[in-house]
Amino acid sequence: MTQARFDRVRRRLDDLGVDALLLSIGADLPWLTGYTAMPLPRLTMLVLPADRDATLVVPRLEAPRVTPHPELFAIRPWDETEDPVAIVAELVARRRSLAISNRAWAAPLLALQASLPDAKWQPASIVTGPLRAAKEAGEIVALRKAAAAADNVATALVEGEIELVGRTEAAVSREISDRLIEQGNQHVNFAIVGSGPNAASPHHDAGERVIGPGESVVCDFGGTFDGYCSDITRTVFTGEPPAEFRDLYTVLEQAQAEAVGAACAGIPAEDVDAVARRIITEGGYGGNFVHRTGHGIGMEEHEDPFIVAGNCERLVVGNAFSIEPGIYIEGKWGARIEDIVVVTDYGPDPLNTVDHSLAWVR
Amino acid sequence: MTQARFDRVRRRLDDLGVDALLLSIGADLPWLTGYTAMPLPRLTMLVLPADRDATLVVPRLEAPRVTPHPELFAIRPWDETEDPVAIVAELVARRRSLAISNRAWAAPLLALQASLPDAKWQPASIVTGPLRAAKEAGEIVALRKAAAAADNVATALVEGEIELVGRTEAAVSREISDRLIEQGNQHVNFAIVGSGPNAASPHHDAGERVIGPGESVVCDFGGTFDGYCSDITRTVFTGEPPAEFRDLYTVLEQAQAEAVGAACAGIPAEDVDAVARRIITEGGYGGNFVHRTGHGIGMEEHEDPFIVAGNCERLVVGNAFSIEPGIYIEGKWGARIEDIVVVTDYGPDPLNTVDHSLAWVR
Repeated sequence: MTQARFDRVRRRLDDLGVDALLLSIGADLPWLTGYTAMPLPRLTMLVLPADRDATLVVPRLEAPRVTPHPELFAIRPWDETEDPVAIVAELVARRRSLAISNRAWAAPLLALQASLPDAKWQPASIVTGPLRAAKEAGEIVALRKAAAAADNVATALVEGEIELVGRTEAAVSREISDRLIEQGNQHVNFAIVGSGPNAASPHHDAGERVIGPGESVVCDFGGTFDGYCSDITRTVFTGEPPAEFRDLYTVLEQAQAEAVGAACAGIPAEDVDAVARRIITEGGYGGNFVHRTGHGIGMEEHEDPFIVAGNCERLVVGNAFSIEPGIYIEGKWGARIEDIVVVTDYGPDPLNTVDHSLAWVR
Repeated sequence: MTQARFDRVRRRLDDLGVDALLLSIGADLPWLTGYTAMPLPRLTMLVLPADRDATLVVPRLEAPRVTPHPELFAIRPWDETEDPVAIVAELVARRRSLAISNRAWAAPLLALQASLPDAKWQPASIVTGPLRAAKEAGEIVALRKAAAAADNVATALVEGEIELVGRTEAAVSREISDRLIEQGNQHVNFAIVGSGPNAASPHHDAGERVIGPGESVVCDFGGTFDGYCSDITRTVFTGEPPAEFRDLYTVLEQAQAEAVGAACAGIPAEDVDAVARRIITEGGYGGNFVHRTGHGIGMEEHEDPFIVAGNCERLVVGNAFSIEPGIYIEGKWGARIEDIVVVTDYGPDPLNTVDHSLAWVR
């Protein structure tokens, strides 16, 4: 999109000794060029050799969708009877170390590997991951707008404006989706509604189960707002929660808050996970927190940095990620609290500001 | 989903000498198992070795989404601190010829290639493509329902029920999308609205251009209805079309009708393309038909068989694909007509039945 991003990518190609970057499906391409490849079998690929100008190889019938930036890349439309793999192979000829979009499809990668038998391949995230993970000021503004739109929907949820009891999870999921669109999102990426025992399934598909009284309901949803993603989770209880659930929730709330507080520049990502896990384990629910604490977010809903044991990369200013511990009691209920947090010079800055306390709703 | 599909896949693995099939993102996995992998970085992969039982490797937090079919595949949930690539690599150990989902992401493929340096990789479509392309009776029923839902929206368009003049392309696209959902689609996959000069861009993104009188408007849209896709295009004219456009449209209408008529079992796919292309070329618009004639459709919007020069595979009964020639005059206007057609024992059976003649609308 800007010369500055191209310059940073080229510096990193040099630093890493990567000879060419090949970008197709996924967010690297729009982050760099403003153009998003259609997720279809016809190949779109930006070829960016470290030692020469970049070329966007694009199906001719999609070429009119590309906003030209001749100072950044040339456009090479291909006709239906041409072989786009041969065109890309020629553009990278004799270069050995290649990096390809993490989300590029396997089929064109295999075809390129067959055409370029001497090449050594790596995922593009080794080049672009750290660059995209340290958000620019304008990107933080965009994430904040996306978070505000999601917050408005989450507020309606915790204040009881979205009715739950007597409706199916799917109906509530549709209402959440409709509200996300009303709030200005271009797409809804997901709207998980897990009630009763389904609340114990972290990635539950909202289904035909009718929500009853005396149940926990986990709602985890997000959309895309001007190209940047939101992701928020709130758990509510239909009626007065029993002491056992309140105890669980108190542990979770503390774990989430302390993990947010730990999200400072210089801290290894896995340490933030460890903070949440320690509190949940001390609370007696260690075996019930079955997923990592969070994931980076930006133009993609899940991207670097991942807040998980084993990721010893240190957080840097501009990192944006979810903090979303959960406690799941199989067959019974579950709870999760999630906010997006940005690492700043002054410490962690949560973009979501909806109340975390346990809401009793209808 | 059924033992019969597993049996057909295993027979094809034997015939092709492929040692294991690895299915991740894309429609092969739900076609075979009923389970759809989430399009996220955590790896989901069905490992189906030719010589032993299949295993679905799935993130533990998504395992509750899987409907178990223990007679078809085992489930191997992986924890956040495990390496799913190592699990898959162990399940295929010592097998050399591997086939992976065409739409699997590059990142896990590269990791698997690093773990299995002696393996030879091919796209899964060599195994599954011909099986999925010859639709079963139940799949044709599903495609017919999807087509009927799209037809109801297209009928509203050609009968002038959807207002065009004075509205933006984006607003019309939203109305088409809303109507597709009202008709029972679970998702809208695309709703192209290209007006005036934008009608000359086959994959135009509906934008802020206001549709005026005296313009051609190409509307190409489709959704997913109970897991199967629709795809239809109709071109309408706002007001009385000039003779020049009527001439173009007459050529296009004939080309589309004759290509549909040519879609018979035993005919090479490229011959169907050639029929449309010959008529358009004879009509004087050869250089303005810039894309292939069609693509297969089923659980994916674009799949085998592709109706394009160079594809000499012969059509078989059960093939379902689009026939969608177009004529595009850059800077001025364009037109495209598209139906989904199924190859039957009795010849081509068009699933879309909306009138093809040039509609004048407001």
